[in-house]
Amino acid sequence: MSVINWLYMSDCLGVLVFAVSGALAAGRRSMDIFGVLVIAFITALGGGTLRDLVLGIHPVSWIGNPVYLLLVTIAVVLTLMGQRITHRFDQRIMLVSDAFGLAVFTVIGVQVALHQAVSAPVAIMMGVVTGTAGGAIRDIICNDIPLILKREIYATASALGGIVYCILDALQFAIVANTLISMSCVLVLRLWAVKAQWALPSFVLEK
Amino acid sequence: MSVINWLYMSDCLGVLVFAVSGALAAGRRSMDIFGVLVIAFITALGGGTLRDLVLGIHPVSWIGNPVYLLLVTIAVVLTLMGQRITHRFDQRIMLVSDAFGLAVFTVIGVQVALHQAVSAPVAIMMGVVTGTAGGAIRDIICNDIPLILKREIYATASALGGIVYCILDALQFAIVANTLISMSCVLVLRLWAVKAQWALPSFVLEK
Amino acid sequence: MSVINWLYMSDCLGVLVFAVSGALAAGRRSMDIFGVLVIAFITALGGGTLRDLVLGIHPVSWIGNPVYLLLVTIAVVLTLMGQRITHRFDQRIMLVSDAFGLAVFTVIGVQVALHQAVSAPVAIMMGVVTGTAGGAIRDIICNDIPLILKREIYATASALGGIVYCILDALQFAIVANTLISMSCVLVLRLWAVKAQWALPSFVLEK
Repeated sequence: MSVINWLYMSDCLGVLVFAVSGALAAGRRSMDIFGVLVIAFITALGGGTLRDLVLGIHPVSWIGNPVYLLLVTIAVVLTLMGQRITHRFDQRIMLVSDAFGLAVFTVIGVQVALHQAVSAPVAIMMGVVTGTAGGAIRDIICNDIPLILKREIYATASALGGIVYCILDALQFAIVANTLISMSCVLVLRLWAVKAQWALPSFVLEK
Repeated sequence: MSVINWLYMSDCLGVLVFAVSGALAAGRRSMDIFGVLVIAFITALGGGTLRDLVLGIHPVSWIGNPVYLLLVTIAVVLTLMGQRITHRFDQRIMLVSDAFGLAVFTVIGVQVALHQAVSAPVAIMMGVVTGTAGGAIRDIICNDIPLILKREIYATASALGGIVYCILDALQFAIVANTLISMSCVLVLRLWAVKAQWALPSFVLEK
Repeated sequence: MSVINWLYMSDCLGVLVFAVSGALAAGRRSMDIFGVLVIAFITALGGGTLRDLVLGIHPVSWIGNPVYLLLVTIAVVLTLMGQRITHRFDQRIMLVSDAFGLAVFTVIGVQVALHQAVSAPVAIMMGVVTGTAGGAIRDIICNDIPLILKREIYATASALGGIVYCILDALQFAIVANTLISMSCVLVLRLWAVKAQWALPSFVLEK
């Protein structure tokens, strides 16, 4: 199977996982079925949409390829049908899947940005945006301060993966190797941080 | 009067109605006059702006045509001047006007999207975005979870209208007939849902 | 020093000031270092980004010029390092710097918009968006109703500056003179409003 296909399938898996996590968040706020669909869509595709808008890429990914909308719908149907099961699995499976989604989206975001010939800092940023903005917008709509701004290493894992990708890309590594290495960096750092409850220091101002 | 003119006038009426509803929402949160103007603008034109950005249409509707900004300003002035009267009418007249605005914006959104040659699911989505995103952004700014994610049939009426439009369009119905039929679908379903207090089932997860 | 250079340096100063104000806001909500960086970035560059997206300008300012990202990073590092000092200076120095940032961003926003040949009302709006939207998005993310919708003359000072700029521009004033005059208008009105605690009347609806 070619690299593109392999990465595309990982991307689809990432969309499914993020859509499920969005649907569960909506369920925790007693939204109706339409609301669940919207939040799932935004969680899964919001980051990539924001990236494409800022980089001026048209058409936006899910407009050009109807598979993405289909995947979100499938994820929502599965979540609603299997809600007790999904909910029970929440903690373990979701954490790992979510870390996997973060890794895939980060690398895809960096690749898309580099393809537009932007500078490395912007490409790294676009990786972080692709990986984390969907979840952040979900939290804003659900009326929370986005978790990634307060939580243990999450966006930081994404940023590190982006940095690794850009360095290896500058060193002319093959795309396959580079993709695997930087995805692994995100995955390992993220899971390690969850396990060790390791977090960035907070900046606390007395009011 | 030609179809275009007739639809354009409905569009202007929709902008007026949505701007008034935005101004009233701002008044309920004691914003200053500038805040009222901003919220009215976002409620009336936010959905169409988001649609144009995502579809890559430039210039955005209200930038190309200054009439829209004028209409929002007029709506705000009228709301501020007649505030006790508008407030009293709120329940009845506003519900019907709002349903009318939803119907017009939905159909216009679908038409604009189909004109960009996107697939039917994307076109239906853009109809829903045009009809509901302005109100949703208003709710987020006003620090609420958007009502449309929790409330009785609203976005669902919009989606249904979009589906009807796309089907009739595929069957090569004349635009006038199609516009009238799908607008009526939105209007009837929405008003019926309000009357019957009919809602989509909620997805409630125990926490 | 040429006008462009002079305006560019003011722009950089504006980015620094707004980034510091964003970092302080994040600190008040105990975000981690990554969150501080994000909020600083959004406060400083969010308004200009929104303006470029709506006007269809690509690449967005900070993508084309890496200096902006560097400035935000420097501002965050300085804020974190000197946090007690910055915090003590908060009230006085920050108010004046913030008013200065508002003045610069407003004028730059109007200039960029006029360069795209939009109508004067749209140009004035883009000035206000450039000057205030970053702070507004910061407040939405931090889960507040944006201050500028409720507070004393802020966006109004920005709008007035934009109006003055458009009038002088129509009267064919030299750009240097026009820039200085309209920036002064924003600055004076804003500082005067703070001093006099002068505010727009609120629109309060009984619930």
